[in-house]
Amino acid sequence: MSMKIISNIEKMNQYAQSLTRKGFKIGFVPTMGALHEGHISLVRLAKKYSEKVIVSIFVNPIQFGPKEDYKRYPRTFENDCKLLKKENVDAVFYPSPNDMFPEGFSTYVEVDAGKSKGLDKKLCGISRPGHFRGVTTVVAKLFNIINPDIAVFGAKDFQQQLIIKKMVKDLNYKVKIITAPTYRERDGLAMSSRNSYLSSSQRHQATALYKSLLLAKRMILSNEKSPKKIISIMKKFIEANIGIKIDYISVVDPNTLEDVKEIKRPVLIAIAAFLGKTRLIDNMVI
Amino acid sequence: MSMKIISNIEKMNQYAQSLTRKGFKIGFVPTMGALHEGHISLVRLAKKYSEKVIVSIFVNPIQFGPKEDYKRYPRTFENDCKLLKKENVDAVFYPSPNDMFPEGFSTYVEVDAGKSKGLDKKLCGISRPGHFRGVTTVVAKLFNIINPDIAVFGAKDFQQQLIIKKMVKDLNYKVKIITAPTYRERDGLAMSSRNSYLSSSQRHQATALYKSLLLAKRMILSNEKSPKKIISIMKKFIEANIGIKIDYISVVDPNTLEDVKEIKRPVLIAIAAFLGKTRLIDNMVI
Repeated sequence: MSMKIISNIEKMNQYAQSLTRKGFKIGFVPTMGALHEGHISLVRLAKKYSEKVIVSIFVNPIQFGPKEDYKRYPRTFENDCKLLKKENVDAVFYPSPNDMFPEGFSTYVEVDAGKSKGLDKKLCGISRPGHFRGVTTVVAKLFNIINPDIAVFGAKDFQQQLIIKKMVKDLNYKVKIITAPTYRERDGLAMSSRNSYLSSSQRHQATALYKSLLLAKRMILSNEKSPKKIISIMKKFIEANIGIKIDYISVVDPNTLEDVKEIKRPVLIAIAAFLGKTRLIDNMVI
Repeated sequence: MSMKIISNIEKMNQYAQSLTRKGFKIGFVPTMGALHEGHISLVRLAKKYSEKVIVSIFVNPIQFGPKEDYKRYPRTFENDCKLLKKENVDAVFYPSPNDMFPEGFSTYVEVDAGKSKGLDKKLCGISRPGHFRGVTTVVAKLFNIINPDIAVFGAKDFQQQLIIKKMVKDLNYKVKIITAPTYRERDGLAMSSRNSYLSSSQRHQATALYKSLLLAKRMILSNEKSPKKIISIMKKFIEANIGIKIDYISVVDPNTLEDVKEIKRPVLIAIAAFLGKTRLIDNMVI
């Protein structure tokens, strides 16, 4: 079977509807392209839980801040398609920004709308205001177009998958959200399309993020109860790398993303840091 | 065939999915119950454009302001079901407020989010802040549960149907929105579940709304170009009824709801007025 590449929204909707009408269970993997092994692991998970797999490739303008990397975000469509074909993906949805967000577009889906301490206002929500509103809005659109039975998101974007699950629950989407474990390079760096921005020395320093999470894990397994202490040690460890600027390190409840005062497992440790202009994130549930 | 009455959200979703899988075109009429002939005309229109008709009966708490009539809104479920059964409706969806909006619910769908002059901020949006966000959110939920092919809304709530169409377009819902003409009593009063609040003298005075629209229509057909003049004459006409307090009378573009400076057909003339505590609306496209 050849892999369909569909750019037209209406056609994608009709194709997905025809699959549903034929009784197929649709698995969906939304991506921004620039695919790496991490994405492929999501596709494989989707294949496991469904009969037809649709992957979207769309660099979503409304989830980028005005000073962020929307324009220079890597776009490698041809290579992405090669990779997906190898995985026997059934269809790639590749809409244009102008079709997705035409002149006059103005409807947004917002989790924890108006709550100053909502899920979308913590962690990455602080340094990226509006980011999660952009994510939930585009994902709602994609769900409406494809109407999938399951959809796979990566655990690397922990806050994102949590917010998507909340949206699905609150708005009664039928789709089941599956969270795939973070896929890492051999040296532990979480795979990310943004890793391609790194110089070789930055690439080397970036491993400090994962190593600091392992450090935290060891501390917690050795019964350290103080988030403050853990954060302080992680910070020192990371800042030993002169090229890294920490955005945040947080120890939070993995369901509410509220800071915890004392470690009581499970906790989520989440980091965001800048290497030059490149912002990387990583996290671990311990 | 007997009419199904389904309260459980999951069951409703499964029932609707099974219809879709069998190839039926689903027509959907969302209501808040307290059904009258106006609603029945929507049901008949839905029947005309689809093969299976689902009617929801749900008094949506999140579209009422804190001082509005959520609690006293008429609830006549048994009678509603009798009426719908006569129309050979296939299923009634009758969820509980607690299932639709459980503790912790926090995701909203908003048309023209953040725009101070958005569609949702004009006309009724001025005196009912948050109303349309409540409407779009519940309708998005209902669409996700039922996934209809067509849905019917009444022209009496002109702004509502316009906002729903915008939401459908922006969020890529596959559903086609059909707007049914306003159904009127013999004396011209637009049918509304809220008419039941009126005392007999209020009920009599309420006809002034429709009559003022007819007055405006005559003026426009006689080539009156000034919205100001039309509004002023409508106002005088309505306020001759001592029991009516005008909320707004507006002459606007029927697509943007922007005030027009000079009449250029088509225009929408929209009124909202209080009779005691009862707020009634009416409108006409001329």
